[in-house]
Amino acid sequence: MWPIPQSWLNGNETLKIFPSLGIKCTNIETAEELTQQIFEGAKNRFREFLVNEKYISPNVHFEVSKNSLTLHSLTIEITGDKSSKLNLNTNESYELSIPSTSDENQPLIAHLKASTIFGILHGLNTFTQLLYFSKEEKELFLPFAPHYIKDYPRFAHRGLLLDTSRNYYPVRDLLSMLDVMSWNKFNVFHWHIVDANSWPVKSEVYPELSEKGAYDPETMIYTKEDIKTIVEFAHQRGIRVIPEFDMPGHTFAISYSMPEIITCPDVQPNWNDFSASPPSGQMNPVLPATYEFLSNLIPEMTSWFPDEFYHTGGDEVVMNCWKATDSVTAYLKEHPNDTYESLLKMFINRLHSLVRENDKIPITWQEMIVDHKLPLPKDVIVQVWTTEDNIKKVTELGYRVIAGSADYWYLDCGHGGWVGDNPDGNSWCDPFKHWQRIYSYNPTKGLTEEEAKRVIGGETLLWSEQADPTNFETRLWPRASSAAEILWSGNYDENGNLRTTKEALSRLNDWRFRMVARGIRAEPLQPLWCVKNPGKCDLPPALKNPF
Amino acid sequence: MWPIPQSWLNGNETLKIFPSLGIKCTNIETAEELTQQIFEGAKNRFREFLVNEKYISPNVHFEVSKNSLTLHSLTIEITGDKSSKLNLNTNESYELSIPSTSDENQPLIAHLKASTIFGILHGLNTFTQLLYFSKEEKELFLPFAPHYIKDYPRFAHRGLLLDTSRNYYPVRDLLSMLDVMSWNKFNVFHWHIVDANSWPVKSEVYPELSEKGAYDPETMIYTKEDIKTIVEFAHQRGIRVIPEFDMPGHTFAISYSMPEIITCPDVQPNWNDFSASPPSGQMNPVLPATYEFLSNLIPEMTSWFPDEFYHTGGDEVVMNCWKATDSVTAYLKEHPNDTYESLLKMFINRLHSLVRENDKIPITWQEMIVDHKLPLPKDVIVQVWTTEDNIKKVTELGYRVIAGSADYWYLDCGHGGWVGDNPDGNSWCDPFKHWQRIYSYNPTKGLTEEEAKRVIGGETLLWSEQADPTNFETRLWPRASSAAEILWSGNYDENGNLRTTKEALSRLNDWRFRMVARGIRAEPLQPLWCVKNPGKCDLPPALKNPF
Repeated sequence: MWPIPQSWLNGNETLKIFPSLGIKCTNIETAEELTQQIFEGAKNRFREFLVNEKYISPNVHFEVSKNSLTLHSLTIEITGDKSSKLNLNTNESYELSIPSTSDENQPLIAHLKASTIFGILHGLNTFTQLLYFSKEEKELFLPFAPHYIKDYPRFAHRGLLLDTSRNYYPVRDLLSMLDVMSWNKFNVFHWHIVDANSWPVKSEVYPELSEKGAYDPETMIYTKEDIKTIVEFAHQRGIRVIPEFDMPGHTFAISYSMPEIITCPDVQPNWNDFSASPPSGQMNPVLPATYEFLSNLIPEMTSWFPDEFYHTGGDEVVMNCWKATDSVTAYLKEHPNDTYESLLKMFINRLHSLVRENDKIPITWQEMIVDHKLPLPKDVIVQVWTTEDNIKKVTELGYRVIAGSADYWYLDCGHGGWVGDNPDGNSWCDPFKHWQRIYSYNPTKGLTEEEAKRVIGGETLLWSEQADPTNFETRLWPRASSAAEILWSGNYDENGNLRTTKEALSRLNDWRFRMVARGIRAEPLQPLWCVKNPGKCDLPPALKNPF
Repeated sequence: MWPIPQSWLNGNETLKIFPSLGIKCTNIETAEELTQQIFEGAKNRFREFLVNEKYISPNVHFEVSKNSLTLHSLTIEITGDKSSKLNLNTNESYELSIPSTSDENQPLIAHLKASTIFGILHGLNTFTQLLYFSKEEKELFLPFAPHYIKDYPRFAHRGLLLDTSRNYYPVRDLLSMLDVMSWNKFNVFHWHIVDANSWPVKSEVYPELSEKGAYDPETMIYTKEDIKTIVEFAHQRGIRVIPEFDMPGHTFAISYSMPEIITCPDVQPNWNDFSASPPSGQMNPVLPATYEFLSNLIPEMTSWFPDEFYHTGGDEVVMNCWKATDSVTAYLKEHPNDTYESLLKMFINRLHSLVRENDKIPITWQEMIVDHKLPLPKDVIVQVWTTEDNIKKVTELGYRVIAGSADYWYLDCGHGGWVGDNPDGNSWCDPFKHWQRIYSYNPTKGLTEEEAKRVIGGETLLWSEQADPTNFETRLWPRASSAAEILWSGNYDENGNLRTTKEALSRLNDWRFRMVARGIRAEPLQPLWCVKNPGKCDLPPALKNPF
């Protein structure tokens, strides 16, 4: 079971499953129409699992008896808000009870209830993980009944970032990823949709952005319709899509269509003096054309993404880029009270104002607060990608935080430098973040209770310099699952004990093999022998504290 | 083009390809029947590429003219040995010439000649890499003609090791891997077929080995028929299959069926005192039953693998295991002139004798020579998996060497420890071996000319603790290609200049995308932007020598 429920009592009976298990929501008729559609979709996916999954676990064994009772149906109730609204405050809790006895002659009925349809979705996903196929009996069973599960998320924001600019992913790959995310109870897809390398979004206001800036203007783009498909597919699975249009840095791709508003474009060969990675280029903060561009683009992009948040980027601004730009230096000469930092402030103020005018709250990378110390309003959410002391700093200032340290939750690290002509180069964020390290990350470590409340959650991140459709699934799974459990279940169990990789490994192995059975290329964590023999490949006690 | 030919002259004409390009071998009728079959298979695969590949390169651009000449046919000649014999001495060289002009009204004809059918296979593979599909013209072209290629391998033994014991791979995955190996001009599949974790080989003499020691006795095995399929498929592609039955260590899986001949099986929890990895277990060197087992097993296994070499293993023997075994200590008490080391010598002598009695030459891991200093005959080939000073030591002693250092050519490293309950554990051979590091490995570094001649080649290795069918393809490619070029083309070009990653990157990117077009999940090395803009993502000069 992954992520593990907050509270879970179970037993030792094995139930059979009625082949056409009845699934009924008692009060779905009173729900909003879209809520009804979401329920229908979830019910169909649930049935698919019942019929097709046939998952045989390598390490979960159970007894089958000829006298096993049969689970006859599942009764569902939405106890609270029946709208389809999904946001940071959505109640995602649920209760699932699967009895193993019933009054004489009464059919066995499981019950799932939740405040919202999104709690129901989580409950159904949990249910699918209780089902195991028996190799011997060639039938589906529900072992370890009865089950009484009371479950709710530790963090409200449980995200996964995918970068679709360094390399492009077809829509079908994103949809498949969203499916796997929902099984893992992720609820935010942070879509790092554009960056310096390519601009795959086909804007209707500025079609030249992708005509010139996408890797391929016909096949490697996301149209308005594609984005609608992705956003709706995600919503159907309880996932919010938050787009990031990173600015003012990481914007070289705009220069293919609007060279005038990009400063220091593609400086070679010393790109490193102007940018964290090639190609260099930042938006010009002193040109009216820049702001005209923003004032046209942002209303369009915010209208395509219904979520109340919008990620404005803001990482890795390099002042050298502006210092090397004539129009910027001329502007500063004319405005002696201004500085490069005040130009950044001006740019960010205008950008955030536009976002707010379009009814969104901005999210920003930590640099705007930690490095540039901009006095942004306290409703801005700050995403911290470096060390925990920065989470402390930012929450102390009163901001809400999304946590996801490069030292723990960057899924791309450890595969060698992607920069060319660099035989000795490893990746800057070496080593690889193995699932055990990911599991050891505590987003609220060292914070006061007040500060900890401001950590709304976290994100695990796949930057795509060395990932694309060929390998992203193995990069993501099951390591992103490791982060998912920390975000859903929390670092501590209901008795206040720290969750350990020793306890988690067997469950994660089981979950990995179940994902593989669902057609997902989730990587193996161990030799199958270790999976089949839990604990036998653990670090020997003598090596645990060698000194 | 990958691996790059030893000598390659080309031009700037773009040829069209006659849709049903004639392919004819002038003297195939005089060849051995199996040679004829190999040729037919190769011709069919070549035609498949002509019809179906449609590879559009992201970084190779060429001019198409309405007046382009059309290549009409390919004429092939085997100039030497027409047998289908494939071994360490097989001549794999070939010459390919593709003209861009012809006498008036004469059709354009390409010529491929080679001493053996296996040279012909390499030439055909090279030819397929000259073909590019035009996105605009929707047609196949052969740019940069004329081509005059004279090519031969730098090393005779160009291997890839895959471990099918830690995790199992279905036959279809091995066949697919062999295909990709042949495109990369690998000629040895070192099949690390059994190990401590599982025994997938279904012996007919000892069926209980896989009935009890395979992960699944029905679905996760290799039958005699499977092995025949794999060996023949490989032979058809110019690849020798050398099996490794690692002994006396790494043999725990035998204990499931024959516990009496395995010492210190699965010691827990301090397995590390008895074995390099769990589960512990070594063959018992003092029991007649051990030798009876060998004398039955080895004739069978050697008969299933036609190659003249047989890998006997021999790595990571831990004497503590025998020291903890009553029968061994009792034997030593009765034989005061013996020692643990002399018992090892006795075991290896018997093992190697059996291999030789079955007409094979043993290959051994370096430990038998470097650590245990056994006086093995000089025809034994020694595989060195550690540092270059050990290659020096072993060649100084007069042995032939297969090189493949864990510091350079282990494809599994850098993905975190697979041992459980180990949150801080990275992989022992961190970091990840990125393609640039792999490319920088010189198997004959620091050797005299005489010593260097004894290095018959090398192998890149994928141990499968964290690899299985879900991810092995991305682990292998394109990094194994990096080793393949060093093995085929050598570290130095025909003018004696060191091959550089700077020169190689564009070609490797092109080759990676071609492998993807062939349906292989080869990983991306860079953002597509870097692929499309060669050199622009190179390490800036200022960072090259920072001090």
